Parts: sequence; C-alpha cells; structure tokens
Amino acid sequence: MGLSTRIIEILKQTVGGTVDVSGWVRTRRDSGSFSFLEVNDGSCLANLQVVVDERLANYESEVKKLTTGCSLRIQGQLVASPAKGQAVEVQADSIMVIGWADPETYPLQKKRHSFEFLRSIAHLRPRTNALGAVARVRSTLSFAIHRFFHEQGFMQVHTPVITTSDCEGAGEMFTVTALEPGQLQGANPFSGDFFGSRAGLTVSGQLQAEIFALSHSRVYTFGPTFRAENSNTSRHLAEFWMLEPEMAFCDLAGDMQVAEALIKHLVAVALTDCAADLELFDQFIAKGLIEKLIQVRDRPFVPLTYTEAVSLLEKSGRSFEFPVQWGIDLQAEHERYLCEEVAKAPVIVTNYPAAIKPFYMRLDEGGRTVAAMDILVAGIGELVGGSQREERYDVLAARMAAAGLEPEQYGWYLDLRRYGSVPHAGFGLGFERLVQFVTGMQNIRDVIPFPRTPGSAPC
Amino acid sequence: MGLSTRIIEILKQTVGGTVDVSGWVRTRRDSGSFSFLEVNDGSCLANLQVVVDERLANYESEVKKLTTGCSLRIQGQLVASPAKGQAVEVQADSIMVIGWADPETYPLQKKRHSFEFLRSIAHLRPRTNALGAVARVRSTLSFAIHRFFHEQGFMQVHTPVITTSDCEGAGEMFTVTALEPGQLQGANPFSGDFFGSRAGLTVSGQLQAEIFALSHSRVYTFGPTFRAENSNTSRHLAEFWMLEPEMAFCDLAGDMQVAEALIKHLVAVALTDCAADLELFDQFIAKGLIEKLIQVRDRPFVPLTYTEAVSLLEKSGRSFEFPVQWGIDLQAEHERYLCEEVAKAPVIVTNYPAAIKPFYMRLDEGGRTVAAMDILVAGIGELVGGSQREERYDVLAARMAAAGLEPEQYGWYLDLRRYGSVPHAGFGLGFERLVQFVTGMQNIRDVIPFPRTPGSAPC
Repeated sequence: MGLSTRIIEILKQTVGGTVDVSGWVRTRRDSGSFSFLEVNDGSCLANLQVVVDERLANYESEVKKLTTGCSLRIQGQLVASPAKGQAVEVQADSIMVIGWADPETYPLQKKRHSFEFLRSIAHLRPRTNALGAVARVRSTLSFAIHRFFHEQGFMQVHTPVITTSDCEGAGEMFTVTALEPGQLQGANPFSGDFFGSRAGLTVSGQLQAEIFALSHSRVYTFGPTFRAENSNTSRHLAEFWMLEPEMAFCDLAGDMQVAEALIKHLVAVALTDCAADLELFDQFIAKGLIEKLIQVRDRPFVPLTYTEAVSLLEKSGRSFEFPVQWGIDLQAEHERYLCEEVAKAPVIVTNYPAAIKPFYMRLDEGGRTVAAMDILVAGIGELVGGSQREERYDVLAARMAAAGLEPEQYGWYLDLRRYGSVPHAGFGLGFERLVQFVTGMQNIRDVIPFPRTPGSAPC
Repeated sequence: MGLSTRIIEILKQTVGGTVDVSGWVRTRRDSGSFSFLEVNDGSCLANLQVVVDERLANYESEVKKLTTGCSLRIQGQLVASPAKGQAVEVQADSIMVIGWADPETYPLQKKRHSFEFLRSIAHLRPRTNALGAVARVRSTLSFAIHRFFHEQGFMQVHTPVITTSDCEGAGEMFTVTALEPGQLQGANPFSGDFFGSRAGLTVSGQLQAEIFALSHSRVYTFGPTFRAENSNTSRHLAEFWMLEPEMAFCDLAGDMQVAEALIKHLVAVALTDCAADLELFDQFIAKGLIEKLIQVRDRPFVPLTYTEAVSLLEKSGRSFEFPVQWGIDLQAEHERYLCEEVAKAPVIVTNYPAAIKPFYMRLDEGGRTVAAMDILVAGIGELVGGSQREERYDVLAARMAAAGLEPEQYGWYLDLRRYGSVPHAGFGLGFERLVQFVTGMQNIRDVIPFPRTPGSAPC
C-alpha cells in the first residue's frame, strides 16, 4: 500500500478518470436511490462529494449506516458535479468501510462546538473545520519561515531547550531534573543531578544564536520556548514557538527591514496558499480578516520612536487603564491604539527607555534609550520584539554587572565581544501570535496543537 | 546598514566590480609590500582572499596587526586571482577594523585543535572549518527535510516538549517542575506544581503525531526530544532532534518506501548543496565519504526480515560480543555487519519479535512478530526505526494493558482506534545520526550546536 491520493489533488483533476481515495465521512445525506457522502482527508478544507447508488452490494448493510467520523476507501469515477461550489464529484464503484465511529459516543457530531469544549478533546479537535484549518495555516507559515530565511542565505541553528542561561533574567524558567523529589535535598540540591547544576527550559534561543551569528553571519532559530508564568489567560502559554533571526554586520535599521519584509512575505504566502482556509476564518471567526491582511501585505509599516509614541498617546485624549508617561512599558491597550487608531497599519516603535529593556540591547548615545524595536499589529499588540545588540565589551560588561548576571556564567557571552565583535541585531517573533494574527483566532490555546497552561498538559 | 553581501555570492561574481564585504580574518600573510588576508563570513567554507597594499593609510597601524578572529569591513575591487583554487580576489581600497581578537588569549589560533578541546569552547568552535561546515550541513539537511515533506503534501505538526505521556515507556524522562526543591514534598509532590501532576520532557512526538495523521493524513513532527539516560558515550545525547513522519492509509511497505526515498533525497541534496563541505570531511575526517554517499543515493536498500537477518548473522562465522539467537535485540555490531559486510548497502530489517518492540506496533499474523522496520547504515547502525501502528482497538487495548499503561492516561490514544481508525504507519529518524552519517563525524557531540550530556549543559 503506497500513499493514498489526496483529495486536494483529486479536486484539481478533470472529469473522466478513475479515483481511489481514502478519508473520513463528514456527513451523509440520502436522497431517493442515492446517498451523498461528504468526505475529507485533511489535505484541504473542501470535502469530496461521493455519490453512492443503492445498487452497491453493501449499500443497505454499511453505506446507510455511515456517520460522521467513519473512515472509508472509495473507488469510482470522477464526473462533473451538478452541485454548487464544486467542479467534480465521485460516482462510487465500491465503498470499503475501514473504521466505524459510534454516533452515540463520538463527540464530533454535525453541529457547532465551542472552542472551549474542543479544548477538552485535544486529540479529536483537528478533525473539525476550524481547528483543521488552523493546523494547515500553521504548517504553511512554518514552512514559509524556513523558506524565507533559506532563500536569503540564513542558516538554521538548533539552539538548546535545556539550558543554564536565563536570557530574559525574569526568573520564570521551569526546572529540569532527573532526580526524584526526595533526592532534591540539602544546600546544593542539584549537585547530584544529571547536569551537575540547576538546569531549566530555555526562555529564548537568542544568546546562543548570537554565537552563530558571530561565525556564520546570518542565522535563525525557530523552536519551542517556555515560561513558568502562572497566567491563566487567552494570551499566555507555558510552551510556545518563537522565531529568532540574528544577523551580523546589521544595525537597527537593517533589523527593521528584515522583520517588515518577513511579515509581509508570510502574510502574502498565507493569502495565496491558504485562501480557502482564510475565507473560512473571514466568514465565521473574524469578519474583514482578508482585507486586513491585504493591507498589511501592501502598505508600509509606520516607524515611530518610543518618545513619539508616548507623545501621541498623551495627546490622544483617551483614558487608558494604565496611565501614559515617558518611561512606562507600553501595554496592549497602548499598542493597539497606536496601530489600530493612529497608523491604521503595523507600527514599529523604536528606541525604548533603557530601564525597561534587557541588558543585551545596544545603548543609544546619551544612554537613556536603547536600539530596540517592537512591531505592533492590530488585535494582537506586540508581534515582534528586537534590537541591535550591545557589541561594545565595556558597555556590555557594565550592563551585565548592573543586571546582576554572574560573570563566570556569562563569560562566553562577553567573549563574543572580546574576539572579533561586530555590530549585530535580531528579533523574536512569537509564532502563535502570528498564527492568531493571520487566522483571527481569539484564544492562543486554539492555534497550537497541544496548549500547555496552568493545570493542563494532556496528551 | 542593510545586510552585508556574503562571500559565497562574491566568489560567484565575475571580475571588474567593486565589493563591500565584512567578515573575520582567518590568516594574514605579508609578502613584500602587500599583506594577504584570508577572510571568512561563514556563508561557505572558502575564504575570500584580500590583497592589501602597504600604501593604505592604516597599513602599518592596523593591517599589519591583524590576527586570526579580527572582524573587518573591506571595500575594494574584484580582480582575477593568480592564486590556485580561486577565480577572484579583492584588491582593497579600504580596510576598516571592526573588532580585534587578542592573539595572546584568543583560543583559535592557526593550528589544528582537537574536537575534545573545541567542545570546551562551544561558543567559539563554530568559527573553525570543521564545526562551521557541520553547522552548514546540518542546516541544509534540516531545510531539505521540510522541503521534502512539504512537496509531498505533508503538514508539519509542532508536538509538545512538555508532556505527561511516555511514548517508549522506558522511564527515562526528565521531570519538569516550577516548584523549588523544598516544595516537592509529601505523597503527591507534584499536585501543587504548575501542571497539577508530574510532567516531563517528551521522548517522542509519535503518539501526538498520530492524532494529526488521523485528521490530516500526512504529517510530520521535527523537533527536540530527550532522554535522562546516564550514558557518557560518543553515541548519546540527553537532548537530540528527531524527525517523525506519520501517514494514514499506509502500511509497512509504504512506510519503507517513504523512508528510503527520504534518505536518498537528503543524501543527494547534501552532495549537491554541500559539495565543498563534504570534500573537507572526505579529506580530513572520513576518507571515502563522498563515494559512500553516492552509493547510498544510487543503490536500492536491501530488505531483510528479522528472521533472515538473524540467520545471516548465525551463519556469519563471526564471534560477536553479543551472541545471536532469534529473539534478541540487534546490537550495533550486528547492524553494522549486516550493512557493511553482507549487503554493502543500507539494510531495512523488518518484522521484529513483538517482545522486543513497543506496544504500539502492529502485530503480524501469528502474533510472534510486529510490522516494524529499522533502517541500518554503515558506520552508524540504526538510522531509522519505524512501524505500521496497531489500528485494531481490541488488539491495542490488550497490548497496552500488558505493557502496564494506565487506561485513563492513554484513553485518548485508544480513541484514535475507536473513531474512524485507519491503517497508518510512521518512523523516527535520529537527526544527529543523519548528520554524522553525511559528514563522517565520529562523536555525536560534534554534530549538534550545544550537546547536553551528563554533567554538562554550558551556554
């Protein structure tokens, strides 16, 4: 048995041939001496319509008992379809039932299910239209990321999940241990552990990506990152995917150019390669989605310094939940105001106060701000956070000391500035936020296959 | 500052133009009134030769002080090179030193360093020829994997790192906790933990990939997996990357076809896209490497049942460290004998004894063997391990009970057989073993950017 022909390919064929196709029943409708089956195999949103004549030997014994979720192998003729919205359909010569799905217990019957309910059956929800489409869009965007960077000469680096470095210094790392709880005792509980000291799950691959930017010039890392942050909201995950390019011989302006080109490219790919899936989201999830994406693809992003952004917010006349003044970290309400109300386009805010940004961002002249840039988009807020990195040894050493980082633990990071240091820059793009932006899905738990959240890690 | 032109592009250009390029000094050689700099930017193995005339203003003050590792920006003319092995070189109009690298302390001077020493400077070793080439080959293979599956209509699924499922049941999972050691107390130490129960790092994404194979037909997962196995050898890592495709409507024969086609394709891509890097490995690391890879690309793999393989080993007249009889698990010495001495090609061993394989593999008729397949290659042993999955509810339930799996924890896995079950198959390919196979590198710690091994998780 080789691989079965996929429905997405059959729907592109012209009438007249024979087909041998497998998939799952979405619906069955009987009419006169025929049954009409809508069959899906996940290769596309569209179903293949299969017309079954009552003269088939197993028509009464099997075909008339088919329900949502049953798996089939269908052999038949590809003919022109009189039905609306499809060019072809299959006239079945044989229907082989592979697996049944008892309608008394199968949770996915033909009706709308809430996303909340679907989260409770993570192992079945990819079989629904919406979650199945999210999975396809996610995969398309993931591959488009790899292709974008490959074509521009970037090398992918697999940065580690297990690490002893806490890039963001936020103290929200999960701990990894090979010991049993009872063995984690004494003043140095991890000295007898697998790695000989406390290790955790990475919060970012940036610092390690910088190592390879300083040898291979253009690199990116794209993989799972983690936060042990006890936030039970529609915006937080304990495990999420992050894309982090890092470029040598590049400053903040170059960083902004790459990030804007990337986002426009990814949106363009989604619009062409996921057209049917995006129409579903536009119709049922987020009205106007496609028009919004076309504008993001076609209009330039709007650069604003942090100082300009604060000034616009102060002059807005809005009463924000978090009051605005120079020095605050921008909140989602501020970010969304800037791109939804002011620019009506994605906004790139640059040169944030040094005091609210991590130690590795390059100090601007004067030392009050850093060469940071965040890209804000409608509905989401921050989609990208990046910066030029501090490449000056003395400046970085002083900032690391001020941040309380142990010199012996981060000596390797300083070495990158000791030997052949160069201006370099990079950014992080939260992949789930991108998938939310492109699909319009409201809850981050619905754009990742297996959300990890407080109290929940099923499957 | 946009992105700098890469050396790999400059070396393809014809003479006559001007160049503006940045990179790191590999060597400097002075001859008469000139200095010759070999400059590398990691985009390829080859260096760009830069000829610097003593008449440059900073010749004495800077150029003559350049040493290995210094970073430069070079502007000049692209001219024909009289030197062997390169068509073009740069006559410098200006040399701007970006960063120095004190030769008294910079560890990477111009001499051969042992791989063992280089492991102690993981943050600098990508700057060497061999480790820099490994990184390029690794990235090329990674992208080729994505492209292969994308072009064949597979969807990528990001299976979780944090999980409560132990696919292999080997008890070698790392534990993940958000609690401090002192908080992990009592009869249920994890009940107050982040996920409300014990969670660990995945040993395989297969079970979760099966969920999506049963909705989207052709899927793959490619990401980090983990083993808390205290093995301090050149073959083991605590964190390594695994590729796992999973295909619905596919049996063991289809599984073998996809795996063989994939390996041949990846080898072919490496031979064409990494030709210069592979020549380095052929010359300095593994003589005959390229010839070996060409044969793997061009010759059919050799299928053998486990029973046939055992018979061949018994008749070999060899005295193996682990004696051979029907029922044993094959060891690396057996696997290598089969492909290096018997088949002189990769071997696909099928239908292993059920007793030595996991619960999820499909029982063959008779119940003594399972529909498993391992692909064995020279020098490595097992590169791929796969199987057709047990799709029959009753058979699987009995095997899970026999394996001692908790029905309430793996009920979701049984549900995949309860609702619309279909024949399906997949395999796992150890990505580091693939990179070793393609590069000839002997120690697995040298083919992953940041090896995690007992006692060691630097950076």
